[in-house]
Amino acid sequence: MNGAVALDRIRIVLSRTSHPGNIGAAARAMKTMGLARLYLVEPASFPDPIADARASGANDVLEAARVVSTLDEALDGTILSAAVTGRRRERSVPVRLARDAAPELAAYAEQGEVALVFGTETSGLTNEDVERCSFPVSIPANPAFPSLNLGAAVQLLCYELRMAALAPTAPVEPLPDLASFDEIEGFHRHLERAMTASGFYDPANPKRLLQRVRRMFGRIRLEREEVNILRGIIGALERKSD
Amino acid sequence: MNGAVALDRIRIVLSRTSHPGNIGAAARAMKTMGLARLYLVEPASFPDPIADARASGANDVLEAARVVSTLDEALDGTILSAAVTGRRRERSVPVRLARDAAPELAAYAEQGEVALVFGTETSGLTNEDVERCSFPVSIPANPAFPSLNLGAAVQLLCYELRMAALAPTAPVEPLPDLASFDEIEGFHRHLERAMTASGFYDPANPKRLLQRVRRMFGRIRLEREEVNILRGIIGALERKSD
Repeated sequence: MNGAVALDRIRIVLSRTSHPGNIGAAARAMKTMGLARLYLVEPASFPDPIADARASGANDVLEAARVVSTLDEALDGTILSAAVTGRRRERSVPVRLARDAAPELAAYAEQGEVALVFGTETSGLTNEDVERCSFPVSIPANPAFPSLNLGAAVQLLCYELRMAALAPTAPVEPLPDLASFDEIEGFHRHLERAMTASGFYDPANPKRLLQRVRRMFGRIRLEREEVNILRGIIGALERKSD
Repeated sequence: MNGAVALDRIRIVLSRTSHPGNIGAAARAMKTMGLARLYLVEPASFPDPIADARASGANDVLEAARVVSTLDEALDGTILSAAVTGRRRERSVPVRLARDAAPELAAYAEQGEVALVFGTETSGLTNEDVERCSFPVSIPANPAFPSLNLGAAVQLLCYELRMAALAPTAPVEPLPDLASFDEIEGFHRHLERAMTASGFYDPANPKRLLQRVRRMFGRIRLEREEVNILRGIIGALERKSD
């Protein structure tokens, strides 16, 4: 497949952006690298003339942007998503560098929809948001001053994706048939119901159990068939305990 | 040598920047990647509170910035310089991609001063400015919309330099002892005088001769010893024709 087609399958998701100028800068950064699909989760102000001014010729990206109210809506239908994060996190899923993650993101974009998720200007993404994505990715910055502007971070990631998507590549292994975001979320809801009904999980006393489960499954990239197997097992156990 | 030391030897030169906000954005971009040495050639407005606001924590870079009135002053003492350009140019020196040029720039920064030169927001660098640099370098952008914001272009190049400077590298060939900018300019002035005195070059009817000479020597990365040899030849010829 043509690399430009892969770039067109990549969503840039900006979560709860405070400054409309940064939305415009992100749109411009995307278009310079051949990306076009912008999702905005609860932007503070959009549309906004400040965003239009900063987009400076990438207004088509802003006009086509989809405004949604939750991260789940923005990720609906994706097969792979990366959470852009600057902070080290207490997580078992290792943080990958932008350059190392870009070829995989571009390769999956040839198979289906892929997303890159950026948090707010001041506090980034919440831990919950990061956990909903397939893996965290970071830009290796100066530890003494890692404070990249949001538009600049979008520019760097889109550049890495363009370099990866348009690079001549060696023939690759056939990619596994990954479960979609909604299939994985459906599995987590199913598991939570089953754990609650069985008494193993007490919603009144959660003790981070759900997060631990998400991290565990987040370390592997679940395939569709594997989700079917897991849900089959849970379903079978549910019926057994009736 | 430590890669961070190399980064500290790299000058970012902004030529005739129109908008002080872009100077602030460039300072922030530099600092996030560990660069600190900013040179401003005839900025439209500097210092400026708009630059301070956009620098957002990188005000130390702005305070240490050197304002100069010609590109030659900004390049004085450098051994290698790259002109960042978006346009294809009628030139015999091939344009190199940022990713391919960064390792060489970083390696030379371990030996001496290195510069990256950026032009104005609207028209970039003049051909004359590009010819004064060792080679042109470009960011591979969407051909339908290659219009990167100046701060974003600085961000991408500084990122590539950081990745190159901090990458674990295999042992490299010893680098040649390159002539400095002033030595090369001294050579060009000497050659021009000799060509004029000899009647080969007519300043009243230049016919792009000097540019052609610059392009030719620009393709060779002149070493100090080579400049000495060339000037020795010219000097010998001058004396012979007296």
